[in-house]
Amino acid sequence: MFEFMTIRELYELMHASRMEIDSIEYVQLQGWIRTNRCSGKLGFIELNDGTYFRNAQLVYTQDLKNFAEVEKYPTGAAITVTGKLVLTPEGKQPFELQVTEAVLEGDCDRDYPLQKKRHSFEYMREIPHLRPRANSFYAIFRLRSVLSMAIHEFFQDQGFVYVHTPVITGNDAEGAGETFTVTTRDDAEYEKDFFGKHASLTVSGQLHVEAFAMAFRDVYTFGPTFRAENSNTTRHASEFWMIEPEIAFADLEDDMNLIEDMIKYCINYCLENAPEEMKFFEKMIDKECIKRITAVRDSEFKRMTYSEAIELLKKADVKFENNNIEWGMDLQSEHERYLCEKVVNGPVFLTDYPKDIKAFYMRLNDDNKTVAACDLLVPGVGELVGGSQREERYDVLEARMKEMGMESESLQWYMDLRRFGGCKHAGFGLGFDRMLMYLSGMQNIRDVEPFPRTPKNLVF
Amino acid sequence: MFEFMTIRELYELMHASRMEIDSIEYVQLQGWIRTNRCSGKLGFIELNDGTYFRNAQLVYTQDLKNFAEVEKYPTGAAITVTGKLVLTPEGKQPFELQVTEAVLEGDCDRDYPLQKKRHSFEYMREIPHLRPRANSFYAIFRLRSVLSMAIHEFFQDQGFVYVHTPVITGNDAEGAGETFTVTTRDDAEYEKDFFGKHASLTVSGQLHVEAFAMAFRDVYTFGPTFRAENSNTTRHASEFWMIEPEIAFADLEDDMNLIEDMIKYCINYCLENAPEEMKFFEKMIDKECIKRITAVRDSEFKRMTYSEAIELLKKADVKFENNNIEWGMDLQSEHERYLCEKVVNGPVFLTDYPKDIKAFYMRLNDDNKTVAACDLLVPGVGELVGGSQREERYDVLEARMKEMGMESESLQWYMDLRRFGGCKHAGFGLGFDRMLMYLSGMQNIRDVEPFPRTPKNLVF
Repeated sequence: MFEFMTIRELYELMHASRMEIDSIEYVQLQGWIRTNRCSGKLGFIELNDGTYFRNAQLVYTQDLKNFAEVEKYPTGAAITVTGKLVLTPEGKQPFELQVTEAVLEGDCDRDYPLQKKRHSFEYMREIPHLRPRANSFYAIFRLRSVLSMAIHEFFQDQGFVYVHTPVITGNDAEGAGETFTVTTRDDAEYEKDFFGKHASLTVSGQLHVEAFAMAFRDVYTFGPTFRAENSNTTRHASEFWMIEPEIAFADLEDDMNLIEDMIKYCINYCLENAPEEMKFFEKMIDKECIKRITAVRDSEFKRMTYSEAIELLKKADVKFENNNIEWGMDLQSEHERYLCEKVVNGPVFLTDYPKDIKAFYMRLNDDNKTVAACDLLVPGVGELVGGSQREERYDVLEARMKEMGMESESLQWYMDLRRFGGCKHAGFGLGFDRMLMYLSGMQNIRDVEPFPRTPKNLVF
Repeated sequence: MFEFMTIRELYELMHASRMEIDSIEYVQLQGWIRTNRCSGKLGFIELNDGTYFRNAQLVYTQDLKNFAEVEKYPTGAAITVTGKLVLTPEGKQPFELQVTEAVLEGDCDRDYPLQKKRHSFEYMREIPHLRPRANSFYAIFRLRSVLSMAIHEFFQDQGFVYVHTPVITGNDAEGAGETFTVTTRDDAEYEKDFFGKHASLTVSGQLHVEAFAMAFRDVYTFGPTFRAENSNTTRHASEFWMIEPEIAFADLEDDMNLIEDMIKYCINYCLENAPEEMKFFEKMIDKECIKRITAVRDSEFKRMTYSEAIELLKKADVKFENNNIEWGMDLQSEHERYLCEKVVNGPVFLTDYPKDIKAFYMRLNDDNKTVAACDLLVPGVGELVGGSQREERYDVLEARMKEMGMESESLQWYMDLRRFGGCKHAGFGLGFDRMLMYLSGMQNIRDVEPFPRTPKNLVF
């Protein structure tokens, strides 16, 4: 008799209960062969079953009746294997399985791209259907799942309502870059199109979710957003996931407190729920990653106005690539990193940016020059989160939109939220994929998304 | 001194701790006025703060220094109010607030559409930015959030990995109806387009998530999917959310067990975590809804083959609208409901459908005529979930695609999953919005989606 178990269950039992593990004699595992080497008499298979980052070591001998076949099982093949569980406290792995039966569930052709040799991340992007089986991707995609759950638990535990804001939108003027058109025609006659007008893919759920904040007080979106920008950088993708909370009866201070709590919660959650993956990143991808995020988790986030930051940058004893520091400029990553890495030595919120470099919906400060916006800067990357208090005053919002030359007709509904019990409120946007890069040290957004979409790249 | 509290916290404390509630004297609330009626000397405000389905009753008198203004606060206005908490165990509500201070946070214009009179759901669809404040929508959108969390907890607790399958896809041949084109051009020259080829909105994450099941064993997607079908029914939307789990080393039986567990878990979770909302649906939308879903939660789901079902339908002492019952036909809702409501009197899986009425990826049975598919039928609606074991045999899959006249080039990667350790696996799709309709008794998919998208309808 044997017990079917997963590799995760085995590792967890190893830590949890010596007595229970001692009572287990025979175990059945199912998974995929990472390596299979055989000396002729004695063979070793590294098996991964998808449930845990680490493998199980299988040992087989000529006693196995299909030994001749087993020794030929290739890397990548799926097998079911039964064996005697043997604890190996001195070994690299805490246990091994002495195989008594092995069955091939799915063979693997000899042109399997994931042979033992290492492949470049560039090459792996061409095979997104197979790369989750390679360690770096196996680690990042589980972390992606763990971080998703962290987000949901963080907000739901505090009573936030999750809102599925629409992907297809009729608002052309959300004001965040180029958009994709959604159509069923090939002649751009949108008034005859599926929706009877021009439709595009959303660039942000914020405007829509604000409507829900006026009903539920605390809400969040977490879904895909899109940019048709032709920029080929390591930090831009055409499709990416965003988290956009919105809180009513709240100002910029409340917003920053929420951001700080969320970032710390997410870091802690990932360290606790993906420890093997984080250890892998530390070893193979970014030696500083655990240290960096642990420091952020344990820091008090500082606050500094944009104007203060500009003064500090002017005085800085550093030659920036863009060294033309003046009030009103948009800060570059080098400036942001200087501020959090050299000045503050930790996470810092920059607040009260010039209105001309920020979005139309941000609340105008009494100085008439700045808006109640905040960017969270963290060591290692610079900006991680952007938030703001929203303009809740109809007249001020209307004037601002006019000033920016925005056509307000399609956003009348958004403006109307101000006329119908629109209280002060605030919110922020966290780029989910960038947060993943930040946690893991992965350097390219293409390598943290399951099927990345970028200009001229649409693989499957 | 007062304590800031939410209405949810107050109601929860009422149930939890009499001692703690007795120790609270003054409370501050923030929310929106549902009604405000004043006799001249004594006024009553029904306040909702977004955190709880039920309102708080505020009582104010001429002692209030801004009484003259407060009595004019309109429905919809946002206010901050402080008052003495008084328990009213004999009243309709378990407590009221005797107002000592009231501040207007956001006025509400007199053309506010949500005055006390009831509006039709049709009218409400024209104001999706305001309707979450109306009871039916307030209830359904919180239930939507609760059900989302149920899904995530159900899968994550069992170690499933959440995968963000792509929204923009290059696979034109996913085989599930009409698709939307995603473009940045107006001339349909797709080779010059953003991605260098034709791109469309996904109709299902299944094919992509199968790739991840071959790495992580148990995975799920939960995201938006799209159909450009010009069908104006109460059950079809152009944008809707789907849950698509995929499990490796699993057959149809495992799949059905997973479906049954998930449905029961979700029902239970919603009954426990949205009791006020469910009571509202029972009272106002569908008198049977709690009874119906409780029965499903407590049932054993039966199983029956399609062929058995056809025999039963032939013998049925009922006149169907489509009474031409023969093997090979696609069952209509009336047939499905007869089977679960009259024959089984409970949930039933229909299995082993004729291959010709099912998708190309479903595993061919040994009879060469049927596939290892299952539909879950439930009383009240008919089909709720569709699943199948997937064809893991390369040759059989290839032959099936050829037979169906499918162009296989763009799906070569999908077929290759069978060549590289592709073991037996299964999965299913649950239409999230239809599940919400099922739970609540809401009759139109447009009324369970925050901003519904249907032919010729794209409101904001």
